[in-house]
Amino acid sequence: MEVQVRNIALVIGYDGTSYYGFQTQPGGNTIQDYLEAAIRILTGETVKLHGSGRTDAGVHARAQVAHVLTESDIPVERWAVALNTRLPRDIVVYEAWEMPLDFHARRSAKRKTYRYVIQNSKFPDLQHIRTRFHHHRPLNVDAMKEALAYVSGEHDFTSFCTARCDKESRIRTIYSADLSILRDPLPGDDQACSIHIEITGNGFLYNMVRIMAGTLIQIGQGKRRPIDMRTILEAKNRSLAGPTAVSHGLTLWSVEYD
Amino acid sequence: MEVQVRNIALVIGYDGTSYYGFQTQPGGNTIQDYLEAAIRILTGETVKLHGSGRTDAGVHARAQVAHVLTESDIPVERWAVALNTRLPRDIVVYEAWEMPLDFHARRSAKRKTYRYVIQNSKFPDLQHIRTRFHHHRPLNVDAMKEALAYVSGEHDFTSFCTARCDKESRIRTIYSADLSILRDPLPGDDQACSIHIEITGNGFLYNMVRIMAGTLIQIGQGKRRPIDMRTILEAKNRSLAGPTAVSHGLTLWSVEYD
Repeated sequence: MEVQVRNIALVIGYDGTSYYGFQTQPGGNTIQDYLEAAIRILTGETVKLHGSGRTDAGVHARAQVAHVLTESDIPVERWAVALNTRLPRDIVVYEAWEMPLDFHARRSAKRKTYRYVIQNSKFPDLQHIRTRFHHHRPLNVDAMKEALAYVSGEHDFTSFCTARCDKESRIRTIYSADLSILRDPLPGDDQACSIHIEITGNGFLYNMVRIMAGTLIQIGQGKRRPIDMRTILEAKNRSLAGPTAVSHGLTLWSVEYD
Repeated sequence: MEVQVRNIALVIGYDGTSYYGFQTQPGGNTIQDYLEAAIRILTGETVKLHGSGRTDAGVHARAQVAHVLTESDIPVERWAVALNTRLPRDIVVYEAWEMPLDFHARRSAKRKTYRYVIQNSKFPDLQHIRTRFHHHRPLNVDAMKEALAYVSGEHDFTSFCTARCDKESRIRTIYSADLSILRDPLPGDDQACSIHIEITGNGFLYNMVRIMAGTLIQIGQGKRRPIDMRTILEAKNRSLAGPTAVSHGLTLWSVEYD
């Protein structure tokens, strides 16, 4: 009997707080490690999972995508439930799809969306302490919105790429970059709100969204003007942009394929 | 110089996940223990904090209220920030108020509001995994709403009080009992929603909201009819009501005073 190789794509959510990022590394304790271990228990196979991209330690995902080649004949509709019983509770497989063998979670990806969330209130909102960066002074959201508009379109994002960045081309296309405010009063703080920055593009350089968020926060603080966003982009110089915002405010929201 | 005793009321939020409830107990690790320790470091005094009521292990608070008598002359507007730097990050003092000496967080309380939240989706929503009870099958929300209406008004709530309940009178007045649905799709699950049960009353018996939630879930599952809520109430018999719903879905939302 010939063994049939299948390509299973998984849609995965995780709270990144307790993990050293998505991708396997020598120290262990990564999302990929736990997923591969769960698949090993389920199928008996030692597999390699291919994510759509790495996420850093502390970064979350609502819908990361990964694929795995398997010889298991377990029906695809049983994978999500079966894997979830074998995963820590802060990693969830939401969907499993059987894909053509040439589907590749990273190479086939066409668009990705990230969200960076800032909790803007005197004190943190405990319901969202793990997924929002808390900034306790008021921010000028209109200035942040104005600045964010400059990143849309095709640009060389060298200024928003960590110095360690080794990509040959730093040109990416941002399809949309939006900022929305959610008012949610806290005790003694009627002005409490959260600022949601959502950016969709054909790809992202290392730390790109976090450096953008760090720069936008400086603009919201009045330390920089909105137009500086354009100047920084044009300079192609990382040292001109703001700091890399903390990882726990970032969530990989979705990955799209054709 | 005469020492002035002051009465400081604190408005406190906490994520109850890691604690053995609000009130001090021999095993330690309670919210009260951490607050009293923070006050001791701040003022140098060993104080007793009086909460508006206990909350069980795993139960959260958005705005618990407690008072403490102190001889410290630290201005009241500095207490919240000063205590927060001395507290674990999942306990937050949102406000501090100087109150008349006869103010008592528990005895002066006029109304309390609790929320119980059910995440109704195939798989959990990771953003709310600590504060919502996850139920993976669809619930009949209209039936739950109809049932919830019966608890409004003045009733003997013996049926919704744990057998350990030692209160002389089990009569309480529920001012409002509402159920609302928040639709928030998850990957592969467009029907994902959360059900928010909010109950305001002049007081609550031990486990009262959790037993109500457990009974409502059975009604939502079709195991009981909405009218059973009235029958159960009238019977004054704990064994007729549903199970006590898990603690982590419950949040003490607010405490009101005149």
